[in-house]
Amino acid sequence: MTLIVQKYGGTSVADLPRIQRVAARIARTRREGHDVVAVVSAMAGETNRLVALGNAAFPNHAEREHDVLLTTGEQVTAALTAIALEADGVPAQSYLGFQVPIVTDQAHGRARITRIEGDALRATLACGRVAVVAGFQGIAADGSVTTLGRGGSDTTAVALAAALGADTCEIYTDVDGVFTSDPRIVPGAHKLERIAHDEMLELAGLGARVLHIRSVAFAKRYGVPLHVRSSFHDGEGTWVVKEEASMEEVMVAGVACDSNQAKLTLERVPDRPGVAAKVFGPIAASGIVVDMIIQNASAEGLTDLTFTVPQSDYERARAVVEKLRADVGGGEVRADVDVAKVSIVGLGMRTHAGIAARMFEVLAAEGINVQMISTSEIKISVVIAAKYAELAVRALHDALVDGTA
Amino acid sequence: MTLIVQKYGGTSVADLPRIQRVAARIARTRREGHDVVAVVSAMAGETNRLVALGNAAFPNHAEREHDVLLTTGEQVTAALTAIALEADGVPAQSYLGFQVPIVTDQAHGRARITRIEGDALRATLACGRVAVVAGFQGIAADGSVTTLGRGGSDTTAVALAAALGADTCEIYTDVDGVFTSDPRIVPGAHKLERIAHDEMLELAGLGARVLHIRSVAFAKRYGVPLHVRSSFHDGEGTWVVKEEASMEEVMVAGVACDSNQAKLTLERVPDRPGVAAKVFGPIAASGIVVDMIIQNASAEGLTDLTFTVPQSDYERARAVVEKLRADVGGGEVRADVDVAKVSIVGLGMRTHAGIAARMFEVLAAEGINVQMISTSEIKISVVIAAKYAELAVRALHDALVDGTA
Repeated sequence: MTLIVQKYGGTSVADLPRIQRVAARIARTRREGHDVVAVVSAMAGETNRLVALGNAAFPNHAEREHDVLLTTGEQVTAALTAIALEADGVPAQSYLGFQVPIVTDQAHGRARITRIEGDALRATLACGRVAVVAGFQGIAADGSVTTLGRGGSDTTAVALAAALGADTCEIYTDVDGVFTSDPRIVPGAHKLERIAHDEMLELAGLGARVLHIRSVAFAKRYGVPLHVRSSFHDGEGTWVVKEEASMEEVMVAGVACDSNQAKLTLERVPDRPGVAAKVFGPIAASGIVVDMIIQNASAEGLTDLTFTVPQSDYERARAVVEKLRADVGGGEVRADVDVAKVSIVGLGMRTHAGIAARMFEVLAAEGINVQMISTSEIKISVVIAAKYAELAVRALHDALVDGTA
Repeated sequence: MTLIVQKYGGTSVADLPRIQRVAARIARTRREGHDVVAVVSAMAGETNRLVALGNAAFPNHAEREHDVLLTTGEQVTAALTAIALEADGVPAQSYLGFQVPIVTDQAHGRARITRIEGDALRATLACGRVAVVAGFQGIAADGSVTTLGRGGSDTTAVALAAALGADTCEIYTDVDGVFTSDPRIVPGAHKLERIAHDEMLELAGLGARVLHIRSVAFAKRYGVPLHVRSSFHDGEGTWVVKEEASMEEVMVAGVACDSNQAKLTLERVPDRPGVAAKVFGPIAASGIVVDMIIQNASAEGLTDLTFTVPQSDYERARAVVEKLRADVGGGEVRADVDVAKVSIVGLGMRTHAGIAARMFEVLAAEGINVQMISTSEIKISVVIAAKYAELAVRALHDALVDGTA
């Protein structure tokens, strides 16, 4: 008997009829002879409603209470899904974070899972019951309720699949799978049948909304095969799996675009050891995640320090830099929020030379200036003017995905 | 430093502005130098919304999941109240049933508290924080979430007050306190300053909606002083306290009316030992609570067996009796749903003779026929035709409360 963990997101459980459809799908999987652990999100809109209530009561409220408030959303869906399964004649039992338990650290609002005990779930499965687990939530060592942050239900599902040694973790979503690019931008984008964890990790981190990056990292670490598929039909989606030799034959698996970027430049900083630490230490201390960093020393012993942050953190990052400017002896602070990051991702880059050059050629042919470049083993990202973002994605997809497929 | 447990019901926390008003009241109590444990209900209407959702998913769903669904209501209020207190500058921390913990048996939907551990709450109070506890909910030994049934938040408050040795348990409600009768029926009804636990117990059991009977029983057993008061103003309400000698001077503390009654008669039953058990055994097994029972043996060795049940259980009770009629050798089953139970309650009845006679005189003077009579040490109840209920309550109040006050 195989064990399948299924995760249903907020749009899949948006109202009672959809929850009943989800239950029917779980029931079918059960009747096909599989053990099923279903992880459910809050009904679409419910989390926003709860956030608004909490903010109306007090905008800067304690994160501990915020988590108590928010976790009711998944709790309601878990109970309703178990009830809908019962209506379908399938015995089911709901589990809250503390009941599994899914133990986390105490970082409210962005907790990390430290331990999952699978015994209770295993006992429920052994009795022939479906376990319906409230996603996104855990319990800290001090007994307080925690949440796992954005995309947390994906992480719950993958972590449970790892802890229980599940055969597959199915992520049900409102798209058909993982695409070579955003079909709203690139009409020719097509669904990938398979993608390696590492490729998905880069794409997830680059703003492809299908899977949360933490859940992919978890899946990679524990070798959990993910199946990203539509909750609206039965067709196969995209399998996110361990790397296989044949995967390197595809040079570029996907082209991603992240428009939620802002660029900051601190001009004419002395080119001395320790300056970068003085700049990025305080930024990190403010909880701002810096993405790309470029430093180019000039002949005069001065350098321009350029980096990107999420647009939502831009104002705060700018304030931090203005404050430390005198301390590090820097010049003006220049900022640009009208930028986008466009990336190509593919295992094939490891073994195929010249992909970067080809990427720059394609962009140059469209008259697009590259402002920043960053590379990893299987990814090349460029920062360009936001107005060229869609044109760049389409051109790169045509040339590097379709052109080499 | 005194410890006060405060309970706020659904109408007191119906929306965010009311929750903020509740928080202001808690904050004031805190600033007056008291330790405060606040017990909160679900926002008015929320429980009904959740019940409707669950029933729409499957009417006969498992009570275990019903409890998971319902407890989110109090969880939301607890978090919002803690947040509103924070906004008022009062450090607060919410507690769910499993976090206190409030341990119950596994009777989902009507669980009984078996144990409360006060250490976590005491530690929170010792840090100068207000503890906001989600009412109505507990945790069973198997780790499942339970609810305490109707009026459960009252029970939570009183049980916590007992476990923590609180000085007072304040029950905030939308009325000013406990009245000698329903002011909507009896214009002259007045608020009682004090009432004994036993008297309140009888009144609570008789349909006076102010306090749930289980919470009063708890308060009596552990000697918890209750203060029933309005959440809309600061005036004193009614103190429900241990019996004192002076209380017996008041003969009749209150007149109550319960219109949710139905009467069933099984005619011409053989007057033999064991017949009553044969009738009431199966009724109890169906979970129906029988209130009054009357059996009058006739000369022919036959008897009519008459009893009352809540109107909501009437159809089921009738079906049970029809089924066992042949078995016990009974005749026709007569039923009457147009009845009401009117009761007078007072510690003074113990020592003053003739109250019952006086009650029957008053009713006779109004031309009201008494169908059934039941008495306890401090209560006399009669069943009469429903159409006379309000007249009877007014007449008895005039004669026995106002007349002897």
